[in-house]
Amino acid sequence: MTRFSSSVSNLRSSEIRDMMSLATAVNMISFAGGMPGNELFPLDTIDNIINSLTDNEKQVAMQYGPTTGLPSLLESLSDWLGKKGLPVKTNKLILTTGSLQAIHILAKAFLDPNDTVLVETPSFIGALSAFRAYQADLITVPLNGDGMDINKLKMRLETTSPKPKFLYYSPNFHNPAGIIYSQEVKQQMIELLKDQEIPIIEDDVYSDLYFYEEDVPKMQLIKSMDPQGIDVCYTGSFSKILGPGLRLGWMLVPESIYRKCELIKQSIDACSPSISQVIADKFIREGHIDDYVARVREEYKKRGLAMIEMLTKHLPEYVTFEKPRGGFYSWLKLPDGCDATKILKIAIDKGVVFVSGKTFDPDGIRNDFMRVSFCNTDVETIKRGVPILAEAIREVCEN
Amino acid sequence: MTRFSSSVSNLRSSEIRDMMSLATAVNMISFAGGMPGNELFPLDTIDNIINSLTDNEKQVAMQYGPTTGLPSLLESLSDWLGKKGLPVKTNKLILTTGSLQAIHILAKAFLDPNDTVLVETPSFIGALSAFRAYQADLITVPLNGDGMDINKLKMRLETTSPKPKFLYYSPNFHNPAGIIYSQEVKQQMIELLKDQEIPIIEDDVYSDLYFYEEDVPKMQLIKSMDPQGIDVCYTGSFSKILGPGLRLGWMLVPESIYRKCELIKQSIDACSPSISQVIADKFIREGHIDDYVARVREEYKKRGLAMIEMLTKHLPEYVTFEKPRGGFYSWLKLPDGCDATKILKIAIDKGVVFVSGKTFDPDGIRNDFMRVSFCNTDVETIKRGVPILAEAIREVCEN
Repeated sequence: MTRFSSSVSNLRSSEIRDMMSLATAVNMISFAGGMPGNELFPLDTIDNIINSLTDNEKQVAMQYGPTTGLPSLLESLSDWLGKKGLPVKTNKLILTTGSLQAIHILAKAFLDPNDTVLVETPSFIGALSAFRAYQADLITVPLNGDGMDINKLKMRLETTSPKPKFLYYSPNFHNPAGIIYSQEVKQQMIELLKDQEIPIIEDDVYSDLYFYEEDVPKMQLIKSMDPQGIDVCYTGSFSKILGPGLRLGWMLVPESIYRKCELIKQSIDACSPSISQVIADKFIREGHIDDYVARVREEYKKRGLAMIEMLTKHLPEYVTFEKPRGGFYSWLKLPDGCDATKILKIAIDKGVVFVSGKTFDPDGIRNDFMRVSFCNTDVETIKRGVPILAEAIREVCEN
Repeated sequence: MTRFSSSVSNLRSSEIRDMMSLATAVNMISFAGGMPGNELFPLDTIDNIINSLTDNEKQVAMQYGPTTGLPSLLESLSDWLGKKGLPVKTNKLILTTGSLQAIHILAKAFLDPNDTVLVETPSFIGALSAFRAYQADLITVPLNGDGMDINKLKMRLETTSPKPKFLYYSPNFHNPAGIIYSQEVKQQMIELLKDQEIPIIEDDVYSDLYFYEEDVPKMQLIKSMDPQGIDVCYTGSFSKILGPGLRLGWMLVPESIYRKCELIKQSIDACSPSISQVIADKFIREGHIDDYVARVREEYKKRGLAMIEMLTKHLPEYVTFEKPRGGFYSWLKLPDGCDATKILKIAIDKGVVFVSGKTFDPDGIRNDFMRVSFCNTDVETIKRGVPILAEAIREVCEN
């Protein structure tokens, strides 16, 4: 008998794998994945970058680098984030192996078994999995159309014992809920958390993918507001704005947290892939990143609007959703008691996949939601897939 | 005040960073690093691989992959390991973000706070750091010229409470000790650990870099012996045989351990870099790996032999060492009580760096050893550096 650690039993068996394998199943219309469309990667730009590397740069790409990241990318990324209003001068940046690793490192930095953490319902499955890996007790705060239910957050803060170790949230184009937090909700979160010794982990991987320029001001990050009396740990990623196969993300955190996270990262993988860092650095320095983001932003907008149009046209009126204004996802509310997993089974038989709601429920129970993504399917496929989805919903909810 | 987890205080502040920055300091002769020489990377081969990728392969390189690894690389690597005699058919392979991640995942799978683990003195600092990150109590077994002191291991097994969660060891061209385990010691380890519910983590990143073909038979891995009654977790890496900047390693483990490790990896970084996996897969499939390994093997042998020659010629006779027969390191024993850190300070002033012994002591105390690596310096530099090193030793040990 192998004697495993007690934390292992906390991990759920196969949700993420099932989701990934559904998302990439062949001959299926996939509304399941959270990955960029394969056809959208900037392959020519990357070819040019690689072909123009000097031998010295190629050697750097093949060699170990510093644990916190290659100096050149730390500089270029810091500039890029600074231009977006992030407080790069008063915080420290660490390159991580995807932003999930940033979240995992923060979980390890803060969590002992039976600690509590505040999370949204619904919430990003990867983060939930990292918190479960450190045996945290997940305390949920429900989401509305403009962010966390502030009264519920207040109540949770008053009643949760031991005091939460941090609050984890995702401000813009939430995965899976698709919403943008309002300025008011973020302000109220700041008021509630100020001087409470409860850091915020602000997970922000979709902000660049807005449909409407007019939304940009309200999307201001709490990290950018730089509130006094709260340690804000900002995490981001190249996965949606360059390519997830590079496994490259980052955290921007106060100095004291940086020092702990550097030590933890030393023990996890020593450093993030240098080859990816060299490519990402050139991608920023040669000015491709903003052009590329503008290009995919337009494409995801086309897909998102097609999705909204088709959902509006084909879904039964008892299925409701907030119209996404960016990001990758629409989040469909089924009638109470309706089971998304039953719908999923029928939809798969008909050739369409999505992810059922309970995957994103920290309690793993509530299943009257469906996450339908539009990132990985072109407009034509969306037009073919949604009517099939609607049919599957009707078969379950009307019988 | 930020409230960190209790495990963070277990991590030592800056040893690895200091070692890395020493190893890469400019204008220094570096005997400090454990990295391949920059000039040895197969840049042309990698250029050719990248330039011959199809668009589809490039998309795979930029996309998420399965948590356990890209199927194509799992297949090619499995074939390659199988040819070396590893039991790939009865075990499961996971691609990891460097072999340090494999060790970290295994630490997380097995360790609760205050668990005990058996480690060698001296031992690989990265593994020690991973075990400390899970608050393990490190129980040490000293190394001799042919492996662990078996009597000491026996004693540790009899007296350690709670029973060790695993034994971690490195069979060939040990880092830092440079030794090869004898077949006898490995057999005795198997006898002692059989049916004890104490898995072995067998960390094997230098085996390919032998100087003498005749040593190959005695270098057989415990994993390859496939002993009954012991779970052997074999870890390996592309870092020394292709390039550490790819961050790509692996573990080959029994099915039950595989399942837990997959879940843990899902929560750490979802998957290892696809771009690195695509390159490594071609590197194996196109037959470059064996040619490349043969080439660097010759170069490291030249460097190792030059190091032995120079050490023999210049070191005071009170400094002793086992002649390395492969790998990256020579491990110098100073007279009892002689302080390697003092020597290091003087050597740095003279323009030469190495790593002092206590870095590799699980107890962090014993400092009458020096790790002198020959992987990252050419023969000429070795010839210039060793006399300076000898001078620094004399200044400390003869005053």
